[in-house]
Amino acid sequence: MAKAKVSGPARAVPANTADYIKAVATELFFKNGFKATTTRNITEACGFTPGALYNHFSSKDKLLFEIIKDTHQVVEEKIYLALGQPARNQSDRLKNLIREFVVFHSTNRQSALVANQEYHFLSGEEKEHVRQLRRRVRAVFEDILRAGAAVGEFDLPKTSGEPAGHLLAMAMIDMVVRVSEWFNDDGAMTPEQLADVYAEFAARMAHSGAAIVPIRPDAT
Amino acid sequence: MAKAKVSGPARAVPANTADYIKAVATELFFKNGFKATTTRNITEACGFTPGALYNHFSSKDKLLFEIIKDTHQVVEEKIYLALGQPARNQSDRLKNLIREFVVFHSTNRQSALVANQEYHFLSGEEKEHVRQLRRRVRAVFEDILRAGAAVGEFDLPKTSGEPAGHLLAMAMIDMVVRVSEWFNDDGAMTPEQLADVYAEFAARMAHSGAAIVPIRPDAT
Repeated sequence: MAKAKVSGPARAVPANTADYIKAVATELFFKNGFKATTTRNITEACGFTPGALYNHFSSKDKLLFEIIKDTHQVVEEKIYLALGQPARNQSDRLKNLIREFVVFHSTNRQSALVANQEYHFLSGEEKEHVRQLRRRVRAVFEDILRAGAAVGEFDLPKTSGEPAGHLLAMAMIDMVVRVSEWFNDDGAMTPEQLADVYAEFAARMAHSGAAIVPIRPDAT
Repeated sequence: MAKAKVSGPARAVPANTADYIKAVATELFFKNGFKATTTRNITEACGFTPGALYNHFSSKDKLLFEIIKDTHQVVEEKIYLALGQPARNQSDRLKNLIREFVVFHSTNRQSALVANQEYHFLSGEEKEHVRQLRRRVRAVFEDILRAGAAVGEFDLPKTSGEPAGHLLAMAMIDMVVRVSEWFNDDGAMTPEQLADVYAEFAARMAHSGAAIVPIRPDAT
């Protein structure tokens, strides 16, 4: 609902032409969707001649792919940042991860939404590449959930069909991903305040606290 | 990721022409987005002449609005169904609600996704109307959470800025809404199995079970 409210500061500081095109395209894909945005829309918004895009990207698909790869690179940096933070146990690790994830999705709404909604329109190897990036993110959540369950710190529900850790990771990621849909910078909460609440939700979903087990120094 | 796998059985049984157009348009909006779908795409897919759509809908916006209103009507029926089911306490009510919500979003993926993603493109009164429908759905969740918290059955986390019940309702709805993005009919779980797991996640998020308080017959 707040889509129209998001202004694009990205255009202010183009580091180089390819980055500038990516920033402008991200804004247009966010506003109108990948399918409804033409390469002409993009070059016009950039102030370029129609063909200028092809000096940097072989196609609109390739441009979307590069934007999504960039977003995933930032997400992976946030993951490493989270995993490097002090943690007494798997609950702390899970909370650190959720916090970074929420802050990312509430402060990078445009690129997060484009990455999460528009990647469907990719095809072939590029789509498969993005799927693997998504699986890699999910695996980080699943590993923590499994590690916590193994030492009795998490109590995962019984499931049939899919492992509980997989479903739990999906549900946690999905609730955070949607933050980029509605978070309002002018709102009543800062990204960090929201992050703390969501970290608590996630810990509850894993039934954290049943028996908090410290991480042994030699096991990290 | 499973978008391409969804076939459209909707076209098989057109009850009347307006419903037929809505079913065909839902499929196109789901596949390509509202913005990228022209009225011509819709009439062609219907097998109609270009102008035929306007006999039933004054604009493409109006058509999207009618589709989203229909979807919300079904969602509200599911809510009444859920609230009418046997419940010993607010935890049961919450779980019944989440179950119906998950089954709806995993069995009506196309219309659910169109309603949740494309309503941004509406404007004016129609957008405001949809926002009110969405608030009404959220209010049902919030009421249950508040009622459960009031009797000590739920333990909502402390928050600043936004009330915990509001954020919890957002997070629960968001995790369920995204099910329509990835649920696979050919997958390892039935909608009902997934619904049970998500109901458990939601109960955990509210810290249900702290003190399960029976609903007094005169209070329902």
